[in-house]
Amino acid sequence: MYDILIVGGGPAGYSAAINGRRRNKRVALVSKEPVSSRLRQAHRVDNYLGLAEISGAEMAEKFRQHAVREGVEIKEDEILNLWQEEEVFYGLGKNEQYKARSVILAIGIPQKATIEGEADFVGRGVSYCATCDGMFFRGQKVVFVSQLPEGEKEANFLADLCEKVFYLPQYKGDYDLDPRIEVISGKPKKIYGTERVTAFVTSEREYEVGGVFIERAGIPLDRLYPGLEMQGEAIKVTREMATNVPGIFAAGDCTGRPWQIAKAAGEGQVAALSAVDFLAGNK
Amino acid sequence: MYDILIVGGGPAGYSAAINGRRRNKRVALVSKEPVSSRLRQAHRVDNYLGLAEISGAEMAEKFRQHAVREGVEIKEDEILNLWQEEEVFYGLGKNEQYKARSVILAIGIPQKATIEGEADFVGRGVSYCATCDGMFFRGQKVVFVSQLPEGEKEANFLADLCEKVFYLPQYKGDYDLDPRIEVISGKPKKIYGTERVTAFVTSEREYEVGGVFIERAGIPLDRLYPGLEMQGEAIKVTREMATNVPGIFAAGDCTGRPWQIAKAAGEGQVAALSAVDFLAGNK
Repeated sequence: MYDILIVGGGPAGYSAAINGRRRNKRVALVSKEPVSSRLRQAHRVDNYLGLAEISGAEMAEKFRQHAVREGVEIKEDEILNLWQEEEVFYGLGKNEQYKARSVILAIGIPQKATIEGEADFVGRGVSYCATCDGMFFRGQKVVFVSQLPEGEKEANFLADLCEKVFYLPQYKGDYDLDPRIEVISGKPKKIYGTERVTAFVTSEREYEVGGVFIERAGIPLDRLYPGLEMQGEAIKVTREMATNVPGIFAAGDCTGRPWQIAKAAGEGQVAALSAVDFLAGNK
Repeated sequence: MYDILIVGGGPAGYSAAINGRRRNKRVALVSKEPVSSRLRQAHRVDNYLGLAEISGAEMAEKFRQHAVREGVEIKEDEILNLWQEEEVFYGLGKNEQYKARSVILAIGIPQKATIEGEADFVGRGVSYCATCDGMFFRGQKVVFVSQLPEGEKEANFLADLCEKVFYLPQYKGDYDLDPRIEVISGKPKKIYGTERVTAFVTSEREYEVGGVFIERAGIPLDRLYPGLEMQGEAIKVTREMATNVPGIFAAGDCTGRPWQIAKAAGEGQVAALSAVDFLAGNK
């Protein structure tokens, strides 16, 4: 049982983590990548006070080291679902299940279901987790749309199960894929079907498939915790970084613009201290 | 004529300044001291993401250098009065008068040292922030002088860390204190020691302690700009760090708790970007 479960490994998540640890709380930071790729890929950052002329990769490494030094438990995992039973929050990860008395969402820029038909077929052929749902697509043809190299591992997992996997990368690089996988090109355009998915359309052609897997930087926010109040595309928060759900706080890009590192780190700190207050029953 | 006049040289002011400069604005940062003494005197800062185990003095120097590199005009001066004529803000300093099209207040929590010896031992046993400095007094005896009920929560935090906490309230009421805390009476008279604090004297007796924490209300901030809307002791701000006066933004400790560096730096960044929007006529 953790005191604070932090979802997301960008500046907001890391700042929340070290601040929780400074207050002697047991803190798990769950992130798909050791540090968010959005930070790591920044060429240079000049506007985070105190660290001038630094690359995103260097900054990410400083953040990670800081957290390690403070005793943050960093988990490379992805939270797929979050729910509450009495006073306890449960986070279902791909690898583990987490229990905590409070949660800080630091999940980055809100992701939206952007492919036509995507939202309509979630659970009926559209999935965000190959390792969770792969078995349901045994012997079928599937498309795997990926914005991140992390998708390759998931697609390779499907190659063992499915009749055919089409991999549609939305990033550049060398693909480390099972030879049975066929890399395809184009932009994802549409998912359609009747009861369940039957076809996937790119800007170049159409594929007859029973499933579409989608790998993005985050899960659409409103799916992570139903009932979480939004304001436009962002999670609605108070100045204390409280959401409408007692015990759930939010920080960083997911609370709205500007999408900036110092703003995120500041909010992460405030969220952690508010979580500490919440744990003490002061609020 | 400046684009942005920043009042205050703490983390909020410096963060606002570099962010204003990154957007090509002409920025003056007016501060009584090159960097706020409250930062410089911090024993050690551990919870500003990316700069672990650093002294306040080192951190202050990094902030100043960052601002110099970005071309911030740093003015050692004290703004005594602020007013507006048409679209222009005027700041009357002790040395100069400043004109600007927008203002960011980053004036911290004004502290007045009223106990004999207090000013001499700031950073050497005297602290204004239990949650910031508490860890340095682990296992020691401390006195907590408080003019406000808010001090109780801070003192309770120390009860977990310190061998003994003596609480000296300068207000009447029921005290919601950890049972390990001893409430004492009398008026604070004197703090003394050699290298560091060794004793605290009240009108009734003397206490051998290693630390003295002091919690008081600041000087009313609304004296600086009449009509500035307050919320309790803090300047009332939106999530965009806008005050009730168009063109005046605020950031850092003066907008309320927690009084922390990352929170201040994040707010400074947001205030600067909001000021840039204001200057562009977007708000």
